[in-house]
Amino acid sequence: MSNRIQLEEAASFLKEQDDILILSHQSPDGDTMGSAFALYLALCQLGKRARIECADGFPKRFCLSSVPDFAAFEPKTIVAVDVADEKLLGDALRKYADRIALCIDHHPTNTQYAERLLLWERAAAACEIIYRLLQTLEIDITPQIASFLYMGISTDTGCFKFSNTAPETHRIAAELMDLGADYVPINVRFFDTKSKARIMIERQALDSISFFFRERCALIVVSRKMILDSQADESELDGVSTIPRQIEGVEIGITLREKEDGKYKVSMRSGETVDVSKICGLLGGGGHMRASGCLVEGGREEAIRKTVQAVAAYTGWDKEKA
Amino acid sequence: MSNRIQLEEAASFLKEQDDILILSHQSPDGDTMGSAFALYLALCQLGKRARIECADGFPKRFCLSSVPDFAAFEPKTIVAVDVADEKLLGDALRKYADRIALCIDHHPTNTQYAERLLLWERAAAACEIIYRLLQTLEIDITPQIASFLYMGISTDTGCFKFSNTAPETHRIAAELMDLGADYVPINVRFFDTKSKARIMIERQALDSISFFFRERCALIVVSRKMILDSQADESELDGVSTIPRQIEGVEIGITLREKEDGKYKVSMRSGETVDVSKICGLLGGGGHMRASGCLVEGGREEAIRKTVQAVAAYTGWDKEKA
Repeated sequence: MSNRIQLEEAASFLKEQDDILILSHQSPDGDTMGSAFALYLALCQLGKRARIECADGFPKRFCLSSVPDFAAFEPKTIVAVDVADEKLLGDALRKYADRIALCIDHHPTNTQYAERLLLWERAAAACEIIYRLLQTLEIDITPQIASFLYMGISTDTGCFKFSNTAPETHRIAAELMDLGADYVPINVRFFDTKSKARIMIERQALDSISFFFRERCALIVVSRKMILDSQADESELDGVSTIPRQIEGVEIGITLREKEDGKYKVSMRSGETVDVSKICGLLGGGGHMRASGCLVEGGREEAIRKTVQAVAAYTGWDKEKA
Repeated sequence: MSNRIQLEEAASFLKEQDDILILSHQSPDGDTMGSAFALYLALCQLGKRARIECADGFPKRFCLSSVPDFAAFEPKTIVAVDVADEKLLGDALRKYADRIALCIDHHPTNTQYAERLLLWERAAAACEIIYRLLQTLEIDITPQIASFLYMGISTDTGCFKFSNTAPETHRIAAELMDLGADYVPINVRFFDTKSKARIMIERQALDSISFFFRERCALIVVSRKMILDSQADESELDGVSTIPRQIEGVEIGITLREKEDGKYKVSMRSGETVDVSKICGLLGGGGHMRASGCLVEGGREEAIRKTVQAVAAYTGWDKEKA
């Protein structure tokens, strides 16, 4: 029996509930936070008690204004937003995993762990679904709610850049702007600001860049020392991994990140033609066609050599005449 | 007497014309090229002879597919698109400047040089106006036309990131995607690709970065040697000027670019509070509140010193206690 429900059913269900706990996924992003805050504000508007929990707290950048002062209560109904798998709740929220009454999500990989699942695989962001849900609930979508929803949609689409952006995504963005979404500071914060740590690690990573196979492959190395010197966090390091593939003409972009044990974590990204999951497979790793990874042992030079050899073995680029 | 006309009048006018020459502005961008190509394809569809001219030719990246093979003819009607001032036609097209029958533009600064002016100051891109014009002309907006219009709109708004993006901008983007605009490769090309020259100049510019006034001011220097080594062009150099201001916490971002005569061209960008046109004014330059420039003499160290002193003189930041 499917646990899939439609918008109207989700709206009716929420109307009947109270003391609602909203859960975001661990390592929160703009979409899970935007979904949670927008739903929280809507439930408050309906006169219900609600609060949000996230295993990793509420990073300031996603709170738009101040972190709300949530009421304390024993939850009667638990709702997960943008959480594709109960494992993604994180250790701190694992205790709720078998009590999720409703999950609102857009990931095709959703593991159907919740009693009720409102899943729109075509939505670019969970915030698109929340927006339609709030309309169904006849919520007064305030500028604050509109801003949270806009944040979720813009961050999950790289500001309408990624291929998941659909005509519906733009239509909802237009409506949210009409409703007063404060989009300029959101865009500046998420798409026009880099931390100093990110700038510092980028600078050092670019110093390490090397090109192979007539510049169709670019490789950067991020050493332990660079990570420690710059104090860059995981998301800043992930951002750096996108750089080599962005270079014009580069088909395979590779980032080698030195781990604490001296091994190298390899991130491989490709453009339009190469399946990098196959290359990483040769090195014992895997992933997706356009983004894969593996772990390589040995010192820096050996790690580079092994990685480049795997690229050559799969593409045959080393055998081409210049 | 105003030369301003409305959409319907522009449509009626174009219907009556033939042998139409469309002009783009010099140093063409995505909007002037997208406008010109979309209008060209529409006029061809109406059975008219048309062609496009641009003082700087047709950069490949804006042609989407191949550069068309334009018919040769003596123009009877000349239309300028996205050209705010006749001077922006460039030397090669100056001969047409006093013969522009229709200008379609969105710049509030338009100098009204044309016989007829269809000006929508609120449009984020001229392509938004062209789109509505083609609808009025009942053109079959093909995927190719939609792609050119999408290119103009996305490039003029930084992919819907800049503050000129309006709800209408998103609505038109949605409609163009419905009409088959091939938006994914356009977004990859313009927003997810950097030339190797740009990467090389960025790397060297980041190596030169220095911070002042408790990191509220960041400054980079682009030397002649860096420009020559990297072979970066003007647009790549302009892109680098945006970097210092993007750093979190930085209110004034400054780029010093060494000119051939050894003087330094200063680009100053600000965040939300400082009027950099006033600071550049102290150095004999000027511009806008958020983006200004000036020219500074002396060697590298002296140029930095003069610039930083002007920042201190205007902001008083040097007098603040840490």
